[in-house]
Amino acid sequence: MPEIDFWFSIGSTYSFLTIKRLDDWSAEHDATVNWRPFNVRTVMSEQQNIPFAGKPIKSAYMWRDIERRAAKYHIHANLPAPYPISDLALANQVALLGMTEGWGKTYTQSLYGLWFEDGIEAGSETAITEALHRCQQDPRLALARARSPDIVQSLENETNTAIQLGVFGAPSFVVRGEVFWGDDRLDDALSWVRVGHVV
Amino acid sequence: MPEIDFWFSIGSTYSFLTIKRLDDWSAEHDATVNWRPFNVRTVMSEQQNIPFAGKPIKSAYMWRDIERRAAKYHIHANLPAPYPISDLALANQVALLGMTEGWGKTYTQSLYGLWFEDGIEAGSETAITEALHRCQQDPRLALARARSPDIVQSLENETNTAIQLGVFGAPSFVVRGEVFWGDDRLDDALSWVRVGHVV
Repeated sequence: MPEIDFWFSIGSTYSFLTIKRLDDWSAEHDATVNWRPFNVRTVMSEQQNIPFAGKPIKSAYMWRDIERRAAKYHIHANLPAPYPISDLALANQVALLGMTEGWGKTYTQSLYGLWFEDGIEAGSETAITEALHRCQQDPRLALARARSPDIVQSLENETNTAIQLGVFGAPSFVVRGEVFWGDDRLDDALSWVRVGHVV
Repeated sequence: MPEIDFWFSIGSTYSFLTIKRLDDWSAEHDATVNWRPFNVRTVMSEQQNIPFAGKPIKSAYMWRDIERRAAKYHIHANLPAPYPISDLALANQVALLGMTEGWGKTYTQSLYGLWFEDGIEAGSETAITEALHRCQQDPRLALARARSPDIVQSLENETNTAIQLGVFGAPSFVVRGEVFWGDDRLDDALSWVRVGHVV
């Protein structure tokens, strides 16, 4: 069965499309996808990669492009969502904790729903708390664990692993050492793992 | 018949994919495409949009992504090509002149061949001269016309038109006032002109 590493970061706008469609897509294509949260802001800051700040025309296009593609995938969204989010670290620490405990995917999907449907900033404790409720987690306990030095370090380690793989933005898909950047490259990644080239 | 405005700029790397595959694609989809050169560097400088300079990881990815997609489209290329090119204006002035005289498409395709297959920088007079030879134009006469105030002004006008339409990068496709950015959005643009949404 094809196996794809899905590197995402809560805070990334285009990751919304992937996060919302990935379960159906994986089932349809019989693909195994490993959800791997990292801190894309660390990576982008280090690489002076600032795609939207101070670029109103490109930002407006980004929202329109996401809107058109959400409609294509039959995904509901109220756009633009609050952006950029104030802090990426905590939301992604919680996601990483959740991935190790089995509720990380539901949490991430819920958080993106709160952000892109209800307009609640994904980095806020309000949104994180509600998303934790939605996957039957006690927010107080989960947040305490997510803030522990272990999880903080784990997210940094994952972020470093992503950098070493050549990841520079989110979402990215990595298969057999090959990086595919952007929700619109998901099918390319599958093609690569199956036949070793893009079809 | 669907009609698409194809805004491109000699100097844009991803435009290579579109320029090389567009004739076959247009025939296959029975689509009419208007080739419209503009100066993307003017637009991007004004909008502080600097996607690759000083970003080695993202630049390396860009070449790899183009390589994979060129293979997908069965387009030959020797990558990386010299980049960035020193000057965009003259090459695009010649393209604009050629569009009005009927040889602009052949010139553009030839020039991208010289750039991406033979490694000759597309903005150089060497490359422009050879591309003009390949479409049976006298380089001395064509370059003189391309440098005339009329053509210089025309390229600036086209660039301003592109900006007014919301174009911020190349290649872009504009249909019914809707902008689609990137070679990978060509099918979206066709879908938009045909059915008014992305399928």
